[in-house]
Amino acid sequence: MAVYTDVTAEELTEFLAPYGIGDLLSYKGIAEGVENSNYLVHTSQGSFILTLYEKRVAKNDLPFFLGLMGHLASHNITCPQPVVNRQGEALGMLAGRPAAIITFLEGMWPRRPNVAHCAGVGAALAKMHLAGADFKMSRANALSVKGWRPLFDQAAARADGVQHGLRALLGAELDHLEQHWPGDLPKGVIHADLFPDNVFFLGDKLSGLIDFYFACNDMLAYDVAICLNAWCFEIDHSFNVTKARAFLNAYTRERGLSAAEQDALPLLARGASMRFLLTRLVDWLNVPPGAMVKPKDPLEYVRKLRFHQGVKSMNDYGVEQSGFVA
Amino acid sequence: MAVYTDVTAEELTEFLAPYGIGDLLSYKGIAEGVENSNYLVHTSQGSFILTLYEKRVAKNDLPFFLGLMGHLASHNITCPQPVVNRQGEALGMLAGRPAAIITFLEGMWPRRPNVAHCAGVGAALAKMHLAGADFKMSRANALSVKGWRPLFDQAAARADGVQHGLRALLGAELDHLEQHWPGDLPKGVIHADLFPDNVFFLGDKLSGLIDFYFACNDMLAYDVAICLNAWCFEIDHSFNVTKARAFLNAYTRERGLSAAEQDALPLLARGASMRFLLTRLVDWLNVPPGAMVKPKDPLEYVRKLRFHQGVKSMNDYGVEQSGFVA
Repeated sequence: MAVYTDVTAEELTEFLAPYGIGDLLSYKGIAEGVENSNYLVHTSQGSFILTLYEKRVAKNDLPFFLGLMGHLASHNITCPQPVVNRQGEALGMLAGRPAAIITFLEGMWPRRPNVAHCAGVGAALAKMHLAGADFKMSRANALSVKGWRPLFDQAAARADGVQHGLRALLGAELDHLEQHWPGDLPKGVIHADLFPDNVFFLGDKLSGLIDFYFACNDMLAYDVAICLNAWCFEIDHSFNVTKARAFLNAYTRERGLSAAEQDALPLLARGASMRFLLTRLVDWLNVPPGAMVKPKDPLEYVRKLRFHQGVKSMNDYGVEQSGFVA
Repeated sequence: MAVYTDVTAEELTEFLAPYGIGDLLSYKGIAEGVENSNYLVHTSQGSFILTLYEKRVAKNDLPFFLGLMGHLASHNITCPQPVVNRQGEALGMLAGRPAAIITFLEGMWPRRPNVAHCAGVGAALAKMHLAGADFKMSRANALSVKGWRPLFDQAAARADGVQHGLRALLGAELDHLEQHWPGDLPKGVIHADLFPDNVFFLGDKLSGLIDFYFACNDMLAYDVAICLNAWCFEIDHSFNVTKARAFLNAYTRERGLSAAEQDALPLLARGASMRFLLTRLVDWLNVPPGAMVKPKDPLEYVRKLRFHQGVKSMNDYGVEQSGFVA
């Protein structure tokens, strides 16, 4: 949570004028997202999110992210939609940063996801994968298997200071993943960061997906694996097979998983664990003095990695191979 | 800026039910206030602020703060108004903390206050002082002259590490203030923290006052002195006599300052400088590791203190003694 860049009412009023969204009434820095500065803006026409893109987000990637949100919204995926200005552009400059105005989605992210939430996110993820099929732009996943060794190299020397034996665990796992990572599964646009704080609900009904700033082109089943980690473990790190079954069944009702995807899922889940473990570990080891953002605990993902290392097949995720039954 | 306490949708829904303000649609932690956790809440009936009172705010003081907001709002001062629940209570419990729902005020606080803003706050402060006259509750000012020596004692040993000579400056000034602090000026309810981030405007028109969590009973002219410091200095710490004149003239058009208040103003302004200098210095010297809130620079108030030490009369604030002319 963070607001890195402050904005004056005068510069925001000037920035908003070409978007034609009414008169500025208020704007509040919100504690959401760790990469960008976000404001909840009220105008005489309603509520909007103003995002100022800070330096961790590559400016060249912004047209992909904003274009994807627009594409998905036009394909009946409820997600924030960038507002375009009179020049037809979604992206402007404010306080020296690239900035966009995005429609505001009502809804709450589930602090304690239940089985209904897991089913909701499964269906929404599959629909997003299908809707992304004819999106014309593409973006490589910088945080897939090739990106992991550089992260490991940054963290290795100090890894055992975080947990005894962590360096050896990560080294061996990385060797295994590099050797066995699949290359031939169905690909498309993935969200790549669909954690509970990026999915809004009104009651048990999903009201929208947000934060597409890690979206990229990669194996669709890898996105499934990321969600399995993000949604189907309890606070005590135990795997909840009921939630996994609900999530996977809801996903496959919208988009079936091929036999090869099913076979690969345990390995993809190990990779998904590795990816979040490594980025969290690097952040953990590099907290700047006076940091406003508390880093997330990397060890949560050590537990998840170990769980998936012990998984033999889809059965361990609560569903029968091939046929998904409730 | 901070959100200290997270809340689940389920517990917030349950908390809101007796307030009868419609269905919960969203809530966002906002980066406002340093003492409490604040959320901007959207319901089917509009926007509200949810405040969870963290431990730095004494629970016994909350009825005073909430009562004052209600009192002022009913006396045509635009300020947030606590919503009362079916039991007629403004204060509830949420996530283990005292919590209140407060009406949302549209408006923006001025990052760069201009002369019109200073005039606006002058008039609003005077109106608030008049409206507070028949408020029945009272609260002592723990941060007035008697509260300063304990703060000085906490900071003295390390003060010279912040700025060479600071300990001697503060010690001598404190002796002077304790000896000459007035006791017989008109008293009433003061805001005591009316900085620009606590005053909202729509354009140049003041739309409301917020954050009454330092409000207390003290000399009304001391509140004037606090605002003089908060509104009438430039970023380079120079005193802007045009802003001071606009502020003081607008104040006195609503509520005249007695000759004694006018005589005392330079001393009160030294005291107001001391109060913020000391609390900022103590915070500066006691930043906890991993702090989410960046402390404010105490040295800004050293410059202000030195300025007021050189002031001979109200003339130096841009206005004639007794008669205020534009």
